[in-house]
Amino acid sequence: MQQRDVVVIGGSAAGLMTATTIKRRYPQKSVTVIRNVSRTPVPCGIPYIYGTLRAVEKNLIPDEMITNQGIEIVASHVEDVDRSSKIVSFKDHESIKYEKLVMATGSKPIVPPLPGIELENVFAVAKDPFFLQRIFSALQVARDVVVIGGGFIGVEMAEQIARLQAEIQADTQVSLIEMQDCCLSLACEKEFGREVEEELRKEGVALYLSSQVRNLEADSKGKVKAVCLSDGNTVKADVVILGIGARPNIELAESMGLKTDPQGGVVVDEYMQTSDPDVYSAGDCATKFSFFTGKPSGVRLASIAASEGLIAATNIFKPKTRKTIGALGAFATKVGERSIGAAGYTTAAAQQEGIEFVVGEASSPNRHPGGLPGSMNTKVKMLFRKEDGVLIGGHVCGGEAAAEMANVMAVAMQAKLTAEDLATMQYATHPLLTAAPTSYQIMLAAEFAAVQMRG
Amino acid sequence: MQQRDVVVIGGSAAGLMTATTIKRRYPQKSVTVIRNVSRTPVPCGIPYIYGTLRAVEKNLIPDEMITNQGIEIVASHVEDVDRSSKIVSFKDHESIKYEKLVMATGSKPIVPPLPGIELENVFAVAKDPFFLQRIFSALQVARDVVVIGGGFIGVEMAEQIARLQAEIQADTQVSLIEMQDCCLSLACEKEFGREVEEELRKEGVALYLSSQVRNLEADSKGKVKAVCLSDGNTVKADVVILGIGARPNIELAESMGLKTDPQGGVVVDEYMQTSDPDVYSAGDCATKFSFFTGKPSGVRLASIAASEGLIAATNIFKPKTRKTIGALGAFATKVGERSIGAAGYTTAAAQQEGIEFVVGEASSPNRHPGGLPGSMNTKVKMLFRKEDGVLIGGHVCGGEAAAEMANVMAVAMQAKLTAEDLATMQYATHPLLTAAPTSYQIMLAAEFAAVQMRG
Repeated sequence: MQQRDVVVIGGSAAGLMTATTIKRRYPQKSVTVIRNVSRTPVPCGIPYIYGTLRAVEKNLIPDEMITNQGIEIVASHVEDVDRSSKIVSFKDHESIKYEKLVMATGSKPIVPPLPGIELENVFAVAKDPFFLQRIFSALQVARDVVVIGGGFIGVEMAEQIARLQAEIQADTQVSLIEMQDCCLSLACEKEFGREVEEELRKEGVALYLSSQVRNLEADSKGKVKAVCLSDGNTVKADVVILGIGARPNIELAESMGLKTDPQGGVVVDEYMQTSDPDVYSAGDCATKFSFFTGKPSGVRLASIAASEGLIAATNIFKPKTRKTIGALGAFATKVGERSIGAAGYTTAAAQQEGIEFVVGEASSPNRHPGGLPGSMNTKVKMLFRKEDGVLIGGHVCGGEAAAEMANVMAVAMQAKLTAEDLATMQYATHPLLTAAPTSYQIMLAAEFAAVQMRG
Repeated sequence: MQQRDVVVIGGSAAGLMTATTIKRRYPQKSVTVIRNVSRTPVPCGIPYIYGTLRAVEKNLIPDEMITNQGIEIVASHVEDVDRSSKIVSFKDHESIKYEKLVMATGSKPIVPPLPGIELENVFAVAKDPFFLQRIFSALQVARDVVVIGGGFIGVEMAEQIARLQAEIQADTQVSLIEMQDCCLSLACEKEFGREVEEELRKEGVALYLSSQVRNLEADSKGKVKAVCLSDGNTVKADVVILGIGARPNIELAESMGLKTDPQGGVVVDEYMQTSDPDVYSAGDCATKFSFFTGKPSGVRLASIAASEGLIAATNIFKPKTRKTIGALGAFATKVGERSIGAAGYTTAAAQQEGIEFVVGEASSPNRHPGGLPGSMNTKVKMLFRKEDGVLIGGHVCGGEAAAEMANVMAVAMQAKLTAEDLATMQYATHPLLTAAPTSYQIMLAAEFAAVQMRG
């Protein structure tokens, strides 16, 4: 039987980050990553397989990122983990005895119990190259594609499939169905979600907002042929993509008798330690709490997984060295020509929590003078808690630097900076790269909020 | 005689920011901005007049930014300010009586006392549209252009003039002369400065590093014809551009009897108040102290001017409301295809200060997977103080988001975050906009430093 100091189950963001961090911090330790796929797709890159990249193999995490660090990869299905003897066993691989174990089993796409959901050509987006290739093959011959769900994955899939279709097929239609009355409503301000919708329409996507799916309809061969909505409308569909979210993948953890929460995942403390002191967990499969409230959080992101991996890996041989500050939620996307970034609360979420806040907004071109090539108006909206002036929400929409502007706000938020702090800080600016120093959006939005707060 | 609540002398970054902020915070106050130019150029945009924009008038600050706020502009030369009677007088304009005065007179380009410096076609870069047009006219018929000084303004001017020349003239040469052995050495890490030099060479600029100018040589008509170096080399020149820095413009302040420092400018406290309680000062003309050491600082930037304007304006009717945390130095530029950002100490400057520090570096493509279009390797280098782990220097070189990545580091620095903080924070990432969540450069560079610090 093989013996390893650490076995990490899962090879995506959390698993990769945990394994490489352990090896960096404790180079003498032997580390094995187990994964149930031959190769690991870049999770956030999946939509771009279909439009921009046009090949599943162009969106794989290079195995060398792991093996170059002296970490072994085992691509096999774990059959059982016996925590008392500390043995991981497989159907088709020699068992491995571990000293420490990391559960990084990720999430599974949610498949809603709709009539017809089992029909051919209805796909959830699973992170498996073979499965992603099946979606690709189906899309290449499809005329009518329906994406269900207007969150990040749904919006990005719809945009990319529309681009693919526009090139390889005539007379095609991509449709997006969203329950809420706006796309990206969980992460973004409604007005920025509207801009994304505008970009989707430009790409030829038909939007069905405030629309609920009732059932899927089959043709005579058992393939999907339409999506029927609760309002009686029917949308033609050769292929249906489900993008309505994910739930923690905890079957194995449950079978091992680890403490789990059906909604939240493998229960971990702030050190990412599970109910078994020799087992840590990180990423989508682990429970999370909100950075702001400390309450359980359902936000699952690769960026949180990476941070949790860095924490779990550090603590594994030096318990309680690092702890998580909780899930913040820092997002970015680009749809059509519009880039969007967000961190923390939306207006809707803050209102729902009953938080009193002040809003600061600023808009200016992301070049100065604004006539420089590549200039695009970029808007920032920030929410500051009325009580203490602390930043609790940051939103940006415009040019491609939106993601890093979201990071300016994400870092400010995690450092608990106030409107007053952000209004008087110094920011790097340059004609070809940012707004003018006198119109830098984050500075001005903070100043506008600071002025209101004074009153 | 006119009477105004506030008179601001100077219409560039500091003046504009102070005037608009006063009007926002104290809308009932009457504010006049006095400037000695007909229009105000965007200061950092000046180099782009010559290559990208091709017109002085495309690089002007819109007057509406000021007048739309109900602020009056007076374009005239101040002849005298009498602080006892609080009267500003002009040669060609009615005198104005003020309640509060703001000195935002900026800086003047340094003109070194070199033999031949007074020759025709030798230009310092003054922020006056007519003067900038004279440079443009001279450049349009020049074959050999020499830029003296390899800081931001020199590097950007050289790149832009090379682009102009490449299009409108055959057989031309732009040369850049720098005393230090590397361009941008005051603000940037040497290895990033080298990348800028590579970009300049690609644009056809000849670099003379570690080179000192001895004198300028005239042709028979009193025009410059060459720049002679201390090492005996001679560089042909129809036009010479001086980009060796600026000194505070304090003649008026001196004549008014305000306390001044010949190097540092109009002496202000941390509230931007001068030796006269009714006179504030902000921007390049005001003394600065270092954010890190509290010692006098020579860093002059529009971003600092903007911040000081926000501070002066707030305090002017509510003394001591806001204070400056000192000059940080947050920079960005783009030369050729390479964008660079920096905040705080360089390695050289930190060593010179005798600070012990740990370096964390990380490099990865700014798209993920790296094969996505527009992908460019982007490197981050961060300096953390050994004593307490606090970030004291942040440098980035690569794609266009470098400026906003510098801002992530600038904000982290101003919030006094540590390597440990930055290693476990959550950052927004997206395939089309940033590095992968597992390779986000700021996170990884901080983690690498944190690992070293532990030892």
